[in-house]
Amino acid sequence: MKKSFILIFLIFLVTGLHAQILQWHEILPGVWKTVYGKPDPYTLLSAAEVKPNQTAIEKMVKTDLLLEKGDIKAEMVNGKVYLRFPLERGEQIFGFGLNFQTVHQRGRILTLHVDHYGSSDNGRTHAPVPFYVSSRGYGVLINSAEYLSVWVGTGVRKDSKNPPEVKDRNTDRTWSSRPYSDIVEVLVPADGVEVLLFAGPTTLDAVRRYNLYCGGGCLPPRWGLGFTQRVHRLFSADQALEEALEFEKRGFPLDFIGLEPGWQSRSYPCTFEWDKGRYPDPAGFVKNMKEKGVRINLWTNPYVSPESPIFKAIEPYTGSHTVWCGVVPDFNVFQAREIMAAQLKKDQIDIGVSGYKIDEVDGGDHYLWPDVAVFPSGISAIKTRQTYCVLAMKMTDDLYRQRNERTFGLVRANNAGGNNLPYVIYNDYYSHPDFITALINSSFCGVLWTPEVRSSNSSEEWLRRFQSNIFSPMAMINAWSSGTKPWSFEDVSEQVKFYANLRMELLPYFYTEFAKYHFEGTPPFRAMALEPGFRHDNGMEVRSQSLEDNPYLEAVSRECKDQYMAGEYLLVAPMFAEQTSRNAGQVSRNTTEPGSRKVLLPKGKWYDFYTGEYVGEGQEITVTPGLDRIPVFVKDGGVIPMMEARLRAPAKGEKINIEVRHYGEKPARYMLYDDDGETFDYEKGDYSWREIIIAKNKKGQWEGAISKAGKGKPDNVGKVTFKFMTKD
Amino acid sequence: MKKSFILIFLIFLVTGLHAQILQWHEILPGVWKTVYGKPDPYTLLSAAEVKPNQTAIEKMVKTDLLLEKGDIKAEMVNGKVYLRFPLERGEQIFGFGLNFQTVHQRGRILTLHVDHYGSSDNGRTHAPVPFYVSSRGYGVLINSAEYLSVWVGTGVRKDSKNPPEVKDRNTDRTWSSRPYSDIVEVLVPADGVEVLLFAGPTTLDAVRRYNLYCGGGCLPPRWGLGFTQRVHRLFSADQALEEALEFEKRGFPLDFIGLEPGWQSRSYPCTFEWDKGRYPDPAGFVKNMKEKGVRINLWTNPYVSPESPIFKAIEPYTGSHTVWCGVVPDFNVFQAREIMAAQLKKDQIDIGVSGYKIDEVDGGDHYLWPDVAVFPSGISAIKTRQTYCVLAMKMTDDLYRQRNERTFGLVRANNAGGNNLPYVIYNDYYSHPDFITALINSSFCGVLWTPEVRSSNSSEEWLRRFQSNIFSPMAMINAWSSGTKPWSFEDVSEQVKFYANLRMELLPYFYTEFAKYHFEGTPPFRAMALEPGFRHDNGMEVRSQSLEDNPYLEAVSRECKDQYMAGEYLLVAPMFAEQTSRNAGQVSRNTTEPGSRKVLLPKGKWYDFYTGEYVGEGQEITVTPGLDRIPVFVKDGGVIPMMEARLRAPAKGEKINIEVRHYGEKPARYMLYDDDGETFDYEKGDYSWREIIIAKNKKGQWEGAISKAGKGKPDNVGKVTFKFMTKD
Repeated sequence: MKKSFILIFLIFLVTGLHAQILQWHEILPGVWKTVYGKPDPYTLLSAAEVKPNQTAIEKMVKTDLLLEKGDIKAEMVNGKVYLRFPLERGEQIFGFGLNFQTVHQRGRILTLHVDHYGSSDNGRTHAPVPFYVSSRGYGVLINSAEYLSVWVGTGVRKDSKNPPEVKDRNTDRTWSSRPYSDIVEVLVPADGVEVLLFAGPTTLDAVRRYNLYCGGGCLPPRWGLGFTQRVHRLFSADQALEEALEFEKRGFPLDFIGLEPGWQSRSYPCTFEWDKGRYPDPAGFVKNMKEKGVRINLWTNPYVSPESPIFKAIEPYTGSHTVWCGVVPDFNVFQAREIMAAQLKKDQIDIGVSGYKIDEVDGGDHYLWPDVAVFPSGISAIKTRQTYCVLAMKMTDDLYRQRNERTFGLVRANNAGGNNLPYVIYNDYYSHPDFITALINSSFCGVLWTPEVRSSNSSEEWLRRFQSNIFSPMAMINAWSSGTKPWSFEDVSEQVKFYANLRMELLPYFYTEFAKYHFEGTPPFRAMALEPGFRHDNGMEVRSQSLEDNPYLEAVSRECKDQYMAGEYLLVAPMFAEQTSRNAGQVSRNTTEPGSRKVLLPKGKWYDFYTGEYVGEGQEITVTPGLDRIPVFVKDGGVIPMMEARLRAPAKGEKINIEVRHYGEKPARYMLYDDDGETFDYEKGDYSWREIIIAKNKKGQWEGAISKAGKGKPDNVGKVTFKFMTKD
Repeated sequence: MKKSFILIFLIFLVTGLHAQILQWHEILPGVWKTVYGKPDPYTLLSAAEVKPNQTAIEKMVKTDLLLEKGDIKAEMVNGKVYLRFPLERGEQIFGFGLNFQTVHQRGRILTLHVDHYGSSDNGRTHAPVPFYVSSRGYGVLINSAEYLSVWVGTGVRKDSKNPPEVKDRNTDRTWSSRPYSDIVEVLVPADGVEVLLFAGPTTLDAVRRYNLYCGGGCLPPRWGLGFTQRVHRLFSADQALEEALEFEKRGFPLDFIGLEPGWQSRSYPCTFEWDKGRYPDPAGFVKNMKEKGVRINLWTNPYVSPESPIFKAIEPYTGSHTVWCGVVPDFNVFQAREIMAAQLKKDQIDIGVSGYKIDEVDGGDHYLWPDVAVFPSGISAIKTRQTYCVLAMKMTDDLYRQRNERTFGLVRANNAGGNNLPYVIYNDYYSHPDFITALINSSFCGVLWTPEVRSSNSSEEWLRRFQSNIFSPMAMINAWSSGTKPWSFEDVSEQVKFYANLRMELLPYFYTEFAKYHFEGTPPFRAMALEPGFRHDNGMEVRSQSLEDNPYLEAVSRECKDQYMAGEYLLVAPMFAEQTSRNAGQVSRNTTEPGSRKVLLPKGKWYDFYTGEYVGEGQEITVTPGLDRIPVFVKDGGVIPMMEARLRAPAKGEKINIEVRHYGEKPARYMLYDDDGETFDYEKGDYSWREIIIAKNKKGQWEGAISKAGKGKPDNVGKVTFKFMTKD
């Protein structure tokens, strides 16, 4: 018996149960890095060629890390890296990518894997970013392109300092199937890993630091924030033109039209060239549309048809497997990028196409290459899967950068490091409530997401979806299959137009908020958990006490997943047409009677966006807004710079008049951003921040003022007026 | 350009794109083995300590492998083994573990991972056995305890000899989102792997060879095939006794009672000792029950409470993580097994407990140890997860073997090599149709499964579930939470009794069929696809042409998943109370009007089990059996040895009278198995096969005869009568 014990002890030593203490280096203020083992140099951030915005990080509040670095452990276990991070009682964890049903990640187990979202938050999603933030105000990035498994406060180690209480299930009604866990555990199936830590002091600051480390968020061209319609997949040039004219005739805004697969001569796999029947004169078509003020965005997927003009040239630089019979360019090989880029440039970008919708870079497993595929670069199929989205975005973005023209498009996947790429994620999942949860979660992981509108079962659903889509990074109808127009549901067509116009009116505000995303790292659309004064409720509840229905008495987290912040001041609380029950195990939305909903207001006073009236402070309110309105509330002292409704976003150099709205009883200061709206000159300092000050004068009347743009700085602002929405 | 090409070519060489040709050795007739790379010696079969039944394999029909071994390829890709196996057009693949919704596995992608079934067939299931069989009549086992990823006819390689046709999705309506694939691909995340091939000639033969290689299927004690009731979790000794008496009083058969967690002093984690309050005299209780003819089976999970008498002793031999605050014995360490076994032996087995229900050895991930856990044996957390079920079954089975007593129990998981362990898998999922699909799939992977009955929403559902449960490896009501009795639904209580009695009447037949499982490898309950003359329909159908609902025009496989064979002759076609629609993407069951269903009859004539009437041959029939009957059909020439209905299975040495039923117009021969029904003496040759011959005499009348048991061989048969069910 004694000998065996010694043997076992030796095995313990060999398998490395004693974790190594990590060496941390503060590489930028509030950003620490460690390298454990021998990581592959190919990582998420290396694939994205991330360049930190050092200046902006240095400008941030200096702070300590609110996480004891000595409590972070790493060890090699059976040839893989096992990382663990401590958790405190009451601490909540957010992030781990674009989840659709949960905001609180503590208690979840995920395997982070780029994929189409399959209706459960298990790590397979369009942006499985291995980054998380804590309610305590710090962030953690595991910079690995492997499939990472994470146990977020679920595992319990024998050596835990905060072990859960042992209970007898037979008789103790407080027994829980999920005992308390004080640890985040990560399995990295590799010989080593790089980990980065981001300080707060607030959760939002940790997110900002992460975004800035990845180069800051993207700044779309101004037209990118206008309205876009994706037309039926088989539309011809004439039909697309007709669609644009119909928008104009009916007075609906439209900045760009998206052409779906039919613009190509073959699709799935793709030829990357125009179909001569549907588009006999592509250059003329694109030019004509642009003259009418409507840009063209093109759908594609990256899989090359044997009938494509680039097939022969690119074939040697493609993977071992085909996707829909198309070869898969290895974008980690220079030649593959060059051959593809040359085709896009010559055939499309040089004639004025404004951007792409990059489809099918997510999953599912049935469509993409299997993990056994081999690529000529030697980068594994798994790492290629995790980064393909970023490589494809970067290749196209680079083409526009070469022309000093900004692009703004759509993509099916993103990952860590893609923060500054001008692409918005979309998918086919089409659950309106879950789309809002995804919008919330996008703010924790440095990606953009649109709750796109396709078609609907009713006018109510159509309008409800449209209303929330307006308060998102891309205001869009995707009619690739349905052919639906904004006015298709006639009985709500005026309400739809009201919100399409409101989107245009809000452009100065949204454009400024995107500038903050770029320069300061603040997500333009974001979770309530990132808002100061928002009350977390980490409570759990057991939804069914019946052991027949719920044999383990599983509890679920009460979490706020159906309202969000749009920019600095707006709180958006979408209405869902069908208040249907969610998936089993999910907490239902904050609903009451049909047509009503609950809204959680953070600390401070809040005002109705439409009327300026006071609605409450730091409390839960119930609203019954009627079909015409999506509930939107403004923070006390909120400043919303707006312009008049127009059919197109202002062009480069065009002056616009601004109406600055003020809400509440607090004086206010807001910095309005401006640049040419189309080029990358802002990266060379060619931009302006104009200070708006609103205060009461000696007579007790509200007054507003705006500073000048500065000598030689962009100034596209014409007349500025002030509107004080809240009556005393 | 030229240099880069050479560089890429070199990388191709280095990454090993040229797959190695494997060396195959015929280790037993019709069984070939290869070892690729340097596999870990710890495998699924090594953990199970499998001993092939060489004699039985040698007795099988000699045949070639209907799979070109030269077409099987292996290569190392990024440090993992990539295996590929060819597929032919029209070939169908079955197996890959206990799937609940699909029978056809061609077209599926799975990661084989022991887990609770989570309502989609993705490889996470109670028995993710890495074994598959082909409709062409061969089987493949990948003997690895890692999580294996398999792409079953989904991937398309550029170098495929049977490439799919390139189509244009824009205009070609025959475009498919899943192009034709001619390959099964397997990723083994390890430095090597052992692969075994099993010849047919039929698909059933390949299954048989696999089962025999793993030692043959288990042979339960005779009482194990009687009826069992699991009582409410907090029942006391008196209540359990009362339950047994009530069964007897009402005339319902009962061979063993299962006690749920409350028999232990603490549960979740467990103490492995009786609760002194509910069971003040365990030995007296067990003895008293046994004298009444009712055995005791005990629920447990393997996780040791700090309040258990064995905690201190076993703690050094447990993993790094706890499960429900209990330590996890490392059953790969001798001491852990010994300490646990000693407690079970002393406290339970030595006083006459007949077996266990081993819970919680499957998952889910939230309950069990994470993949980062470390075990003192040095076996990884993953391999421990994949084999823990087998180790736990084997430990308890060994205790009974030491006593020369057979056991028969329940388990939540199984894997390759567990074929001969006397345990039946169950779970909480409780979908009646999917339970039947699981029963079908259990036959492809060498495990047993019970579609257990717990409670029901209606009398109809209760009866329908009960009827199919009777035709399964374990006839059971699991009332751990509900406390439901067979007679709880009064309006169908007589019908329930009819089927409980029928189970007892069928014991001679089922016992013989289990003997065939043991001696010949033939699964007692099995898929229609294993039945000669059953017509496969490999057709695919697109369920929705709407791109809004089905953006990729996904097609689903038409497959037979709601009828099965029970023993050599019976075809069982369960009725489901609610003919509700299945999960999206699933083909609905073969239903017509409420109360009716379709049944696919294999070639040859078929007869009604209850009446002996002819019902059809090689065709699809529609039946409307009424609530009282589950449709059961008998093959032409079918022989069903039955006994009279009894409350208990015959004890060792007890003589029973047999009524041999014959169906149809064919003469027949059937080998009736017999042994003592309780010990392992059959392994030493202490058994008999008696030949039953049925033929028409010269007068054209049916006559039957049965041979003698043989000198010194077991003979528990009293009077034998013959009943010719089909009138001329």
